[in-house]
Amino acid sequence: MITQTKEITPEYDSKTIAKLKQIVGKNNVISDLEGLYAYSFDCAHIPFSKEYPRVVVFPENTQQVSEILKFANRHRIPVIERGAATNHAGGCNPVKGGIILHFSKMNKILEISNQDLTCKVQPGVVVGDLQNEVSKIGLFFPPDPSNLAVSTIGGGIALSSGGPRAFKYGTFKDYVLDLEVVLADGTIIKTGAQTVKNVTGYNLTQLIVGSEGTLAVITEATLRLIPKPETTNVLMAYFNTIEEAVNAVSTIINNHLTPSVVDLIDQKTVQTIEAFYPTGMLCDKEAALLIEIDGDDASVKHQQEKIISLCMENNAQYIDCAKDEEHKKRIWTSRRSAFGACAQLAPNVITEDVVVPRSKIAELSKGIIEISKKYNLITMIMGHIGDGNIHPNFALDLRDKKQKQNFEKAKAELFKLALSLGGTLSGEHGIGCQKASFLPIALDKTTLNLMIQIKKVFDPNYILNPEKML
Amino acid sequence: MITQTKEITPEYDSKTIAKLKQIVGKNNVISDLEGLYAYSFDCAHIPFSKEYPRVVVFPENTQQVSEILKFANRHRIPVIERGAATNHAGGCNPVKGGIILHFSKMNKILEISNQDLTCKVQPGVVVGDLQNEVSKIGLFFPPDPSNLAVSTIGGGIALSSGGPRAFKYGTFKDYVLDLEVVLADGTIIKTGAQTVKNVTGYNLTQLIVGSEGTLAVITEATLRLIPKPETTNVLMAYFNTIEEAVNAVSTIINNHLTPSVVDLIDQKTVQTIEAFYPTGMLCDKEAALLIEIDGDDASVKHQQEKIISLCMENNAQYIDCAKDEEHKKRIWTSRRSAFGACAQLAPNVITEDVVVPRSKIAELSKGIIEISKKYNLITMIMGHIGDGNIHPNFALDLRDKKQKQNFEKAKAELFKLALSLGGTLSGEHGIGCQKASFLPIALDKTTLNLMIQIKKVFDPNYILNPEKML
Repeated sequence: MITQTKEITPEYDSKTIAKLKQIVGKNNVISDLEGLYAYSFDCAHIPFSKEYPRVVVFPENTQQVSEILKFANRHRIPVIERGAATNHAGGCNPVKGGIILHFSKMNKILEISNQDLTCKVQPGVVVGDLQNEVSKIGLFFPPDPSNLAVSTIGGGIALSSGGPRAFKYGTFKDYVLDLEVVLADGTIIKTGAQTVKNVTGYNLTQLIVGSEGTLAVITEATLRLIPKPETTNVLMAYFNTIEEAVNAVSTIINNHLTPSVVDLIDQKTVQTIEAFYPTGMLCDKEAALLIEIDGDDASVKHQQEKIISLCMENNAQYIDCAKDEEHKKRIWTSRRSAFGACAQLAPNVITEDVVVPRSKIAELSKGIIEISKKYNLITMIMGHIGDGNIHPNFALDLRDKKQKQNFEKAKAELFKLALSLGGTLSGEHGIGCQKASFLPIALDKTTLNLMIQIKKVFDPNYILNPEKML
Repeated sequence: MITQTKEITPEYDSKTIAKLKQIVGKNNVISDLEGLYAYSFDCAHIPFSKEYPRVVVFPENTQQVSEILKFANRHRIPVIERGAATNHAGGCNPVKGGIILHFSKMNKILEISNQDLTCKVQPGVVVGDLQNEVSKIGLFFPPDPSNLAVSTIGGGIALSSGGPRAFKYGTFKDYVLDLEVVLADGTIIKTGAQTVKNVTGYNLTQLIVGSEGTLAVITEATLRLIPKPETTNVLMAYFNTIEEAVNAVSTIINNHLTPSVVDLIDQKTVQTIEAFYPTGMLCDKEAALLIEIDGDDASVKHQQEKIISLCMENNAQYIDCAKDEEHKKRIWTSRRSAFGACAQLAPNVITEDVVVPRSKIAELSKGIIEISKKYNLITMIMGHIGDGNIHPNFALDLRDKKQKQNFEKAKAELFKLALSLGGTLSGEHGIGCQKASFLPIALDKTTLNLMIQIKKVFDPNYILNPEKML
């Protein structure tokens, strides 16, 4: 963990705030304590430190961002980028105080090109809004983080977010062609090109994607779009064991099929969904698979028939295949209700995000159940089984010291388990401040040191999103 | 351009060679002048400098590569990685002498996992061999550089090579999950994870993909595979103008279709192919489009019908749609013969590799024709129109001073044209030593400086593939 940013004294703050008001205008600055409290944590609602930001600013253009960074860099003030803060790893917590750069006023879709299959957007654009806009002209932006109704493009790029469709379509990183970023010293640069293919120099674009705002501030992105599939359908298949569900997925893939979504939902999650948002899921089976397929009409029909037959071969107990739009919506609603339902069980729900090779999913799931028993935790397992990306949801009360301690121990064991199975700490939620201390067990010393050296090249004064990731 | 490696004196060489023989064994070292000559240029057959390598070594494992680098780094000896040297930009030319690391003896497919959809390979594996092997178990490695029968995985990763299928499937960068690399000082590290999703730390993998061997030496790669499409078909559509061909492609994409290949072949190229390897192409049309579609049987039939109808709507003059395997092969043979046919026209054929947004293809093509007229060059235009990646083939005699001068001027104008259209210098062939001097016109000073700083982090003594890219 790198820490070099100096503490800001209260005297210093008033000058900072005056300067920021001068840059972005009075109405684009929040500096009262009540206002600041709301920006002291992310979606996980864990403060990680007791720090509030000293000030929240809402820049309206790249030039303002550049001015803010020049000032902050000169005075060594931490700068923390923030979109909708839907991440779960403390990725935008102001653990060293500083300035929150809030991108809600840089939320414009600047251009959509039907011919080049690209769009140019500001970081504050909501993912779902972009999907709707491009969809109107028959185009498709596949990354679909669960919170897409509020989460932003900037956040998606900063974490290389994925979502259920990543199995077929990849994550944010696969759709970012070019970024306009502001460096720590205020310099504005472009990292890539407007073209899908580009090998002109090192891939700075992909270095910044997933870097959690620690290398540069994203102010504009050129994204790749693809033609929208003609049609989709969805089914839910129930199995007696997680192993059988995993085997069904392997069989599907080995039969040349690439569903757009292959999500696993365990029994405890199904039971929780049915308890709070009932849609008629089967509560007596150990595992459910949500499978979505897309393509042209003929292909979807063909894939659907084959997938049903392959699930049956793998001992599926029941298959609920959507017959119409209403039915599709019902199946998806049950899946999307999972987090909300889990949140009803306890004051806190912590969603983890480990990844393992797909062949190790059953082993990982068993391990998670064992760890949860050992530490007396309520745990619901779900995730993108196609990618090997599992999200165990832990429902607990963090105010209870014992529960908190148990969870910390369970988390450490979960990470070790994922690594021992050839996996890694995070698939799409990032490292943030929650997992920063675990990075040395996932990466060897030389690799970590290379990353620290790269951080120094981009941000020699360590002002950008301090104590995150590294 | 960075130059810091010191010249090696002949006295020095004998010690170097003795040490290298000790590391890799006598039979894995070439140091006689005739032997070394063959390693002084790449596929473009342009020496760029009069330097030969001082020695060529054939390591058999990662440990040997590490030993070689420790030694070379200590003595500041340049090290140039080499696969099949099929690149066109002088990417592996030993312009400062030094050691060629030849990977033909590290050519093993170490593992193919049907369940994880991954494989682990050494850098010397031939791309076509890997495709054949994974195909046997129903899997697919999409990147298909034209020289796939000889070009290697290591070279493909070093340049992020593409090929015709990049439109639907992307390039090498989209398939590299993890690399084992040896750093300049001999340290062996892993850059990523074995999983498709991974946001644990900065994306060192993508920093090294496309870095042309200037940051680290790749000794093993974990690649992503996908299920093999059930079937493919291919058609060739002829148009009166390049604009009409470009419009047809836009219409196809705007109708939700994603062909696996959309290649453009101009009239001059068609005429050259027919002059040397006749397959019955139509020589009187300004543009031909080769379109390949893949998927399940029902979908391929559906896509094919739609594409034919959309090409007709866009004034296609004739459509040659494959009826059987023999027919498919014939259409592909004509496309794949293009480079060989052009090579019959003059002692040298130089293939360029610019990229522009697809909407600018017609404008780029017109510009290329004008530049060629101005400098009296024989130029054939072809390329991956779906990606905006155009390969003009210039047939000329580089021994003729005037022709050489003219070509240099034409090249500079071509690059400026591509950049002025919002494009870039290279889509898949890389920068090498051929385009290194043009990098400052494609990238701004700060961006270039960031890249130089990154190079310093990885290779402080500038021993890795000197004078390439930066």
